[in-house]
Amino acid sequence: MSQRQNPHPNPPPQAREGDILDTPVIDRESNGTEHDHTSLRLWLRLLTCTTMIENCVKKGLRSDFETTLPRFDLMAQLERNPQGLTMGDLSQRMMVSGGNITGITDQLEKEGLVERLKLQGDRRVYHVRLTTKGKESFKSMARVHEEWIIDWMSDLTMDEQHLLYSMLGKLKKSLQEKGCES
Amino acid sequence: MSQRQNPHPNPPPQAREGDILDTPVIDRESNGTEHDHTSLRLWLRLLTCTTMIENCVKKGLRSDFETTLPRFDLMAQLERNPQGLTMGDLSQRMMVSGGNITGITDQLEKEGLVERLKLQGDRRVYHVRLTTKGKESFKSMARVHEEWIIDWMSDLTMDEQHLLYSMLGKLKKSLQEKGCES
Repeated sequence: MSQRQNPHPNPPPQAREGDILDTPVIDRESNGTEHDHTSLRLWLRLLTCTTMIENCVKKGLRSDFETTLPRFDLMAQLERNPQGLTMGDLSQRMMVSGGNITGITDQLEKEGLVERLKLQGDRRVYHVRLTTKGKESFKSMARVHEEWIIDWMSDLTMDEQHLLYSMLGKLKKSLQEKGCES
Repeated sequence: MSQRQNPHPNPPPQAREGDILDTPVIDRESNGTEHDHTSLRLWLRLLTCTTMIENCVKKGLRSDFETTLPRFDLMAQLERNPQGLTMGDLSQRMMVSGGNITGITDQLEKEGLVERLKLQGDRRVYHVRLTTKGKESFKSMARVHEEWIIDWMSDLTMDEQHLLYSMLGKLKKSLQEKGCES
């Protein structure tokens, strides 16, 4: 894979032969070559699809709601857990470090969208939950967010979506079993 | 989806009935419910799988090579393009903003892993490319990185991996056609 072995790649990586499903596009998958292992190419494609959707969600949240994806994600977790969540719960569910969670929570609290409540049993631990204003704000964003996702996936039939869901379920289970959880 | 409608969800979202492939685990998919649209659940599962692998790659790069994923990604793009890439090329290929690219490039240049070269035709534009030290450093990381990916995917047969690759190809094409590119 060094410069000496392949000084002038032809065709370029983004237009691989036999890769009929791709239109020529430069993205994170462009890093793969014919010789790369199937698993690596699969990972790069998984990453590319996720990044494409994530970037589109970010763009939509910014333009339509003047908000960010981490804020939306945090509110989504709280909406699903109306009893409230600790910082540790949020960190685990959002699969990111605690430091980030604290900053986002501080900002949402300032805007009156979430509130911190002391737990009765242990007064050192806080629960975070959505305020009424936060619930309303999230609901309107979530409705539009779901419409985006449905639209972006709509070229896949429901059968194809179920198949993809099931295959990814198998991958997820395998990752869990290999300890690749967080 | 509000507190009133579902104050005590049972079973909890992470152990949905009929979702036989999942073991109970709390992650970004935990935000989905039975009632969510298939496309939304598919997106959350796609995001969860990608985040699991990405977090595991990050952990491995940190522990085995004392490096970060953005540094590895940038070097990977340069390895595939030995003639060098401009900042704009790198930004497009890594699907992130230019500001991040500049910071990572500065750091890699300080460590002697990449070099900036002025273009002959336009002296205002730089090309970035790997140094010999950078090429060697990347090669050893890439080999181990590929072994990780092969291992993490190994519970899926080659047929299953090809099927998943093809389904994601269809999703990617659909996203491109809908202008969901960056």
